Amino acid sequence: MDIRKKIGLRIKEYRTNLQLTQEALAFKAEIDKTYVNEVENGKRNISVINLEKLIFALEISLREFFNSEAFDGGLTK
Amino acid sequence: MDIRKKIGLRIKEYRTNLQLTQEALAFKAEIDKTYVNEVENGKRNISVINLEKLIFALEISLREFFNSEAFDGGLTK
Repeated sequence: MDIRKKIGLRIKEYRTNLQLTQEALAFKAEIDKTYVNEVENGKRNISVINLEKLIFALEISLREFFNSEAFDGGLTK
Repeated sequence: MDIRKKIGLRIKEYRTNLQLTQEALAFKAEIDKTYVNEVENGKRNISVINLEKLIFALEISLREFFNSEAFDGGLTK
């Protein structure tokens, strides 16, 4: 699976666990809500600065975010 | 410390452990060598697709790459 999709799914997973809407997450992360929607749908090649903003708005660390089997494998084609 | 610097330092750490030059890593990752230099020096807000390319050229997973205290904390200002 494409890295953008993996990241999008993981963000959505944490966001829904926090019972946040995309709009609420976008506000918290100081990022545009359309952008958040596109990231969650694997449509955005997000940069590390924006990724960090989103992840911290989800109240987790980068270490925890990537600590998943989804990010174990080699290069995704 | 800025996320770009943290990522740059981590890439350099793995690259030197593999005794690869920046040029060799750039070639392996199919990325421009100047770009690799700038990423290692914290100058680039790298995207996840390029980050994945570099990390896999270092023969590790994203999960391993971010499994470091450097990526434990909250938002870096």
